[in-house]
Amino acid sequence: MTNAQASQNSNDNLRYERGLAKLQQIDGEGGVKVVESLAGIAPDFARLLIEFPFGDIYSRPGLDLRSREIAVVAALTAMGNAAPQLKVHIQGALNVGVTRNEVVEVIMQMAVYAGFPAALNGLTAAREVFTADDEKSAQPLAEPRALVETP
Amino acid sequence: MTNAQASQNSNDNLRYERGLAKLQQIDGEGGVKVVESLAGIAPDFARLLIEFPFGDIYSRPGLDLRSREIAVVAALTAMGNAAPQLKVHIQGALNVGVTRNEVVEVIMQMAVYAGFPAALNGLTAAREVFTADDEKSAQPLAEPRALVETP
Amino acid sequence: MTNAQASQNSNDNLRYERGLAKLQQIDGEGGVKVVESLAGIAPDFARLLIEFPFGDIYSRPGLDLRSREIAVVAALTAMGNAAPQLKVHIQGALNVGVTRNEVVEVIMQMAVYAGFPAALNGLTAAREVFTADDEKSAQPLAEPRALVETP
Amino acid sequence: MTNAQASQNSNDNLRYERGLAKLQQIDGEGGVKVVESLAGIAPDFARLLIEFPFGDIYSRPGLDLRSREIAVVAALTAMGNAAPQLKVHIQGALNVGVTRNEVVEVIMQMAVYAGFPAALNGLTAAREVFTADDEKSAQPLAEPRALVETP
Amino acid sequence: MTNAQASQNSNDNLRYERGLAKLQQIDGEGGVKVVESLAGIAPDFARLLIEFPFGDIYSRPGLDLRSREIAVVAALTAMGNAAPQLKVHIQGALNVGVTRNEVVEVIMQMAVYAGFPAALNGLTAAREVFTADDEKSAQPLAEPRALVETP
Amino acid sequence: MTNAQASQNSNDNLRYERGLAKLQQIDGEGGVKVVESLAGIAPDFARLLIEFPFGDIYSRPGLDLRSREIAVVAALTAMGNAAPQLKVHIQGALNVGVTRNEVVEVIMQMAVYAGFPAALNGLTAAREVFTADDEKSAQPLAEPRALVETP
Repeated sequence: MTNAQASQNSNDNLRYERGLAKLQQIDGEGGVKVVESLAGIAPDFARLLIEFPFGDIYSRPGLDLRSREIAVVAALTAMGNAAPQLKVHIQGALNVGVTRNEVVEVIMQMAVYAGFPAALNGLTAAREVFTADDEKSAQPLAEPRALVETP
Repeated sequence: MTNAQASQNSNDNLRYERGLAKLQQIDGEGGVKVVESLAGIAPDFARLLIEFPFGDIYSRPGLDLRSREIAVVAALTAMGNAAPQLKVHIQGALNVGVTRNEVVEVIMQMAVYAGFPAALNGLTAAREVFTADDEKSAQPLAEPRALVETP
Repeated sequence: MTNAQASQNSNDNLRYERGLAKLQQIDGEGGVKVVESLAGIAPDFARLLIEFPFGDIYSRPGLDLRSREIAVVAALTAMGNAAPQLKVHIQGALNVGVTRNEVVEVIMQMAVYAGFPAALNGLTAAREVFTADDEKSAQPLAEPRALVETP
Repeated sequence: MTNAQASQNSNDNLRYERGLAKLQQIDGEGGVKVVESLAGIAPDFARLLIEFPFGDIYSRPGLDLRSREIAVVAALTAMGNAAPQLKVHIQGALNVGVTRNEVVEVIMQMAVYAGFPAALNGLTAAREVFTADDEKSAQPLAEPRALVETP
Repeated sequence: MTNAQASQNSNDNLRYERGLAKLQQIDGEGGVKVVESLAGIAPDFARLLIEFPFGDIYSRPGLDLRSREIAVVAALTAMGNAAPQLKVHIQGALNVGVTRNEVVEVIMQMAVYAGFPAALNGLTAAREVFTADDEKSAQPLAEPRALVETP
Repeated sequence: MTNAQASQNSNDNLRYERGLAKLQQIDGEGGVKVVESLAGIAPDFARLLIEFPFGDIYSRPGLDLRSREIAVVAALTAMGNAAPQLKVHIQGALNVGVTRNEVVEVIMQMAVYAGFPAALNGLTAAREVFTADDEKSAQPLAEPRALVETP
């Protein structure tokens, strides 16, 4: 291994670890599941997903995580073609301090910019996330879920 | 005029006036221009635009205007097919206290959710708004612009 | 309660009732279900959905309901990201006098403007609506479904 | 030339001529310009554009042209990424008997399904078409424009 | 039947047969199922689907089928609203010689142009196609599936 | 500066340089202009644009550049909301060996998947790129353009 390669590996690990920590902070279990689901089909994409969106973008200091999650919930509701990711980020918004009511307001507001169907489908996603969240809270404590291992 | 019609007119005026005030607070001159541009083609739509998005949605108490404008800038950047409205709301975001740097962060973040072209075109819109804003600040004070009259 | 508030409440009821009647005329049971589904997550959005699209837009005299439903079926087929609402409006189109064959022609035409996948997915939605409609016609008469109550 | 090839050429001419007549009936000068603009870059696409959308789809008997143009104006307004084609079809709608007011109603209605920006940009397109139409009517009669030649 | 009609029928059969052969070459069983699924709702659309996309476009000599399938997988992944058709064309890409790894690379690349959610949902589609393909290979040989009959 | 930071800087430079070389190989002058245009508004985004799409994705060995550019031209044509980037990548496709005729075939094929308006607007973009290319070839040789400096 050359020195340049060693340096590259070392640095990739830094971005990866910073990104993984951010992914877990924001998306929690949902984000980890997304990464795990990629293992069999595109493991490199799991690494890129952690490094660029979470290691590079979400780790930037210029915007608080609450605002970032509001932005994502708005965008994915408006685009209307990414329901699984919208649900992950509705949970993510809750995880970083956005209230359920605020999530609902953001989605309702999208009726103005992307139409009522987009808002209705966004509200359906929110209801599913809130319900799953309620059910989990009602259950006895399970073993804490192991964090995804660094590949 | 029946009592019901009188009540309706009275109430429509309430929603309209509340919406117009909110439009001016958020979008300022840009919003007023949008309304004026509708006069010749669809004056009823100008009224509906003020009543529903601004009189109904933006007037709701559950989400602060700063978060609402972050949500709109994110959504319109991601959709990528509404450049004029994106510019109005980039200015709107600045008007309600979002910083230029935060606007840029929101748009950059959309590269993750809607791709780099959407983010690049959003940044182009932001640059145009910031430049126009700078030029306006550099000019001697003009007469204050008359507010749009209630139709 | 002030006079202004009383007037507002009275007027909101007028728009709401006009919108609810229009919703039931066009979308029938499907529209009512949409409204009911919002009760637990965003009851205010149910009210807005009735007031603006149906109380304001669909109640305008300038375009017949048949043309309005053709327009919606075309738009939702072309957008391709709102299957539940497309199904409601395919049924709505039938409810206001568009024939099954005309619905199919509108959807087929969208192959030209939004591509064959959009048209194919629209035809799948139409087949599901037509099949459900046939099955309902084949059943013995059920009790008439109660209309949604005004909140 | 084999008999099969001769038959194919003969038939392609039938579809082409039927499509060209339909294109001229609906889109008039705007449609002809679209076809002409393809001459230098993709002449085969001009032929396909006439044969499939106009020779096959618009020539089908199951839906009147007025409804077809309402469907297109709705879809292109909602998609929001095809302004040149939207203008051609706003003119096309007028050509087959849709009134200006009906065009405006269809576009306004899209605020419900695709958001206010889509409707606003559609109204801008309509205003440009109506204005150009008014200016043409105000001019002295020009020589009738030659129809596009069959390639 | 006039001579012109006879010629038209003869020629339509030529385009149809050329298109059907191309559909079977590219999309195989998946394409045939799409055509069959249209029988009950829009049989004419099945014919148009074979004639225009496959008889006209895919039969053109200027681009190899491998490149055409890469183009389709990229486009449908980026659009993100046509999962059934994306799966058919992932299989189609494999059928004309694109490797699984190349399919995954094309989909991953779409993260740059349409965002990570589009790429993630494309990878989910790819995994389903690959898994179904593996399961089919593991089964004992079934009777060869009859080709769709020419209507 | 800690060792970890030094390693990170060293590695970021490796990804950046690899990405910049790839950007110049594919998009040439057009890509460099995009990067330069970001200097005043979001210089960090210029770095991310080089590092992730070009340093990470385009540098992967699993797919040839010709196929990658065909994929991008297809996707951006189909999405229909990123004309500037489509033009850059039409030139990029030519730069890596795709012929003009193949570019036109890819765009024409998108009529099937995203509709005729998307294909027509893609052909307009292609014509502009080809014309600019012809004009440049007709000019006397200019000084070679300096490569963009590493920030």
